[in-house]
Amino acid sequence: MYREQDAQRYASLIVNQGVRLQQGQAMILRAQVDCVDFVRLVAQEAYLAGASEVVVFYSDQQLDRMRYQHAAQEVLDNPADWQVRVITEMLEKGACTVSFTSADPDGFLGLDMGRVGRALNAQKIISKPFREQIDKKENQWIIVGVPSVGWAKKIFPDDTAEQAVEKLWDAIYHAMRLDQEDAAAAWEAHNTAIQQRRQLLNESGVVTLKITSGLGTDLTLDLVDHVVWEGGAGTTVGGVLFHPNMPTEEVFTAPHRARVNGRVCSSMPLNYQGTLIDGMTFTFQDGLVVDHDARQGKEALDLMLAVDEGCRRLGEVALVPYGSLIQEAGILFYNTLFDENASCHLALGSAYVSASQGALDLSRAQRLERGLNESVSHVDFMFGTQDLSVVGIRADGTTLQIFENGQWAF
Amino acid sequence: MYREQDAQRYASLIVNQGVRLQQGQAMILRAQVDCVDFVRLVAQEAYLAGASEVVVFYSDQQLDRMRYQHAAQEVLDNPADWQVRVITEMLEKGACTVSFTSADPDGFLGLDMGRVGRALNAQKIISKPFREQIDKKENQWIIVGVPSVGWAKKIFPDDTAEQAVEKLWDAIYHAMRLDQEDAAAAWEAHNTAIQQRRQLLNESGVVTLKITSGLGTDLTLDLVDHVVWEGGAGTTVGGVLFHPNMPTEEVFTAPHRARVNGRVCSSMPLNYQGTLIDGMTFTFQDGLVVDHDARQGKEALDLMLAVDEGCRRLGEVALVPYGSLIQEAGILFYNTLFDENASCHLALGSAYVSASQGALDLSRAQRLERGLNESVSHVDFMFGTQDLSVVGIRADGTTLQIFENGQWAF
Repeated sequence: MYREQDAQRYASLIVNQGVRLQQGQAMILRAQVDCVDFVRLVAQEAYLAGASEVVVFYSDQQLDRMRYQHAAQEVLDNPADWQVRVITEMLEKGACTVSFTSADPDGFLGLDMGRVGRALNAQKIISKPFREQIDKKENQWIIVGVPSVGWAKKIFPDDTAEQAVEKLWDAIYHAMRLDQEDAAAAWEAHNTAIQQRRQLLNESGVVTLKITSGLGTDLTLDLVDHVVWEGGAGTTVGGVLFHPNMPTEEVFTAPHRARVNGRVCSSMPLNYQGTLIDGMTFTFQDGLVVDHDARQGKEALDLMLAVDEGCRRLGEVALVPYGSLIQEAGILFYNTLFDENASCHLALGSAYVSASQGALDLSRAQRLERGLNESVSHVDFMFGTQDLSVVGIRADGTTLQIFENGQWAF
Repeated sequence: MYREQDAQRYASLIVNQGVRLQQGQAMILRAQVDCVDFVRLVAQEAYLAGASEVVVFYSDQQLDRMRYQHAAQEVLDNPADWQVRVITEMLEKGACTVSFTSADPDGFLGLDMGRVGRALNAQKIISKPFREQIDKKENQWIIVGVPSVGWAKKIFPDDTAEQAVEKLWDAIYHAMRLDQEDAAAAWEAHNTAIQQRRQLLNESGVVTLKITSGLGTDLTLDLVDHVVWEGGAGTTVGGVLFHPNMPTEEVFTAPHRARVNGRVCSSMPLNYQGTLIDGMTFTFQDGLVVDHDARQGKEALDLMLAVDEGCRRLGEVALVPYGSLIQEAGILFYNTLFDENASCHLALGSAYVSASQGALDLSRAQRLERGLNESVSHVDFMFGTQDLSVVGIRADGTTLQIFENGQWAF
């Protein structure tokens, strides 16, 4: 189903550039059973790179589907937390972690979405220790994509399963810069460009963004206090550079949870728990969504906004140039890892604590005070267009053009 | 790779007759990733039968192989026990468990067997809580076979992968009585026959077996004190009938660990950790193997006997008529679940505590005193032949012919 040699280069890129496994480090792999061939390849690369051990946690979307459909409600409401505990313990002892995203976007279609949403939320709640450990920046981690038949057929419905999977591999190789002669060098150059824009924004003194597009977006959002723009590679507290997401084209931070006003219109569809939501508009008042609509999938959007209060406030704003490597492919991937790198986007829900300098050491109340949003949910939606303008405003009222005609202005 | 309808009947037999899942009961499934299609089918059947949830633990022999080959020695010596803990906790809360055996018998070929053996022993040691929970007879459990390409190709090396897998499915369906019109009824009749022989032996007063065959076997073994013959279906303390092994043709108990004398010659090859051992002879003195040899695989046999002292004493004696349903197939399965039902066999290593009446409530010292052997190992080897004779001797010296010409004498 995939070309051994390309897959090998991909596996090596993930292990050696992506998560940058260190000699003697343990690696955790999380994958769907469908990806077993590629999992074995990545494990092999990890051992070649000196992994002390590779521990794989397999999941199976078809079993998850049966579970959501048939398991006792009490079981869904009280999910076992052993996997989160085991993974978090391994991270505390210094492991790195590689997660493969490969799910069929329609995998839960036709199920009682209220029941599924409730189960997913219960799972999110028990995942808190894992997220907190990741926030400590002690461990390298990465999320990467691997084709499954279900996912590929969703993107290329008119192809045979085999052709569709082949096409998705191609699209992933392109997004991963594996069609360039020296993918590792291409990633280094790409990362340098991202770091430069990040630094410029971090030194700009901008505290407010004014975002407008011909689609109807006219939004003013304050950034969190002590704002930090992030993007590209991360660095552990121990000094190891790694790529949390591959691909990644975004420079991002967090809006202030209580200081967003105006209207934003989505520019690309969103796949939420198996349902496509398109043509969304949100009206914000003091950070809260006070009105929302969708041309398609309104019911799913209602559910998405009913998880908790935090999911009706913003947790992320991310800048991606129109015509990025991902958008260039002209494919809707139905997968956030890829689609969020096609266009500027906002996330409803939790903020990354790292978006505010030193917030990791603050109490929950202090984080909220700084404007960092809190929710069990975090859902991206795209608003980038070819005519998008983003103007930064400093505390003294002076401005900085950040995006013009959908592109970086610097 | 397999016929959907037959597989469905097999899945139903496992869930409803084999492990006899109770309404509202949780089910644990343990399987290799290769068996994902059949795992999903069994999970579906379990939910149809009213399972509260189905939790699957996937393993991957190819990842295990990489682990034995490349993981740090410290990791192999100190295996994580979270899976044993999680499964044991679920059993304590009332779950039942289905284990699929499907491994490639040659899966670990070419590895440093000393390193593999040491790793396997470390794993056996941490599995103790699981074995102790099973010994309590609170839970239904079952081990069944599912073809993998590696396993099928080992049995049918001259066939294509697809043909070999197809043939192995056929062999398994035959062994599982699924080629009979009403497999559930056939299992009931078969179980009744086993129970009758079991009962006769349990009421016989026999305390010693004298075993002889033309192959050179001449062994006298005392049975454990307060001996209990087992076989066929088991019953939980809660009264649920279940089949721990399918297929199963044996009636078995435990020899006294210190009262075995004479010589036994194996009648079929044994696959030990990927190596075939054939033409074995063991000489026992007061229960201990004092001499051993093999026509093939002597080195692997040496390793097998070097695990601990207990692995050089007997833990099981099992009676299976020559020409059983399994032997009839004329196939060496390279898998104990099947091969042990082809012929009378002995096991070197641990005894089932249930082989001595009431021993579950005894201390370790008291169990040893009764003759129940203790070891982290338990390896079956076959000694049954067409001319096998087994004579039972009572405490008063009277005898009972149990096997004659390889068949039950009653």
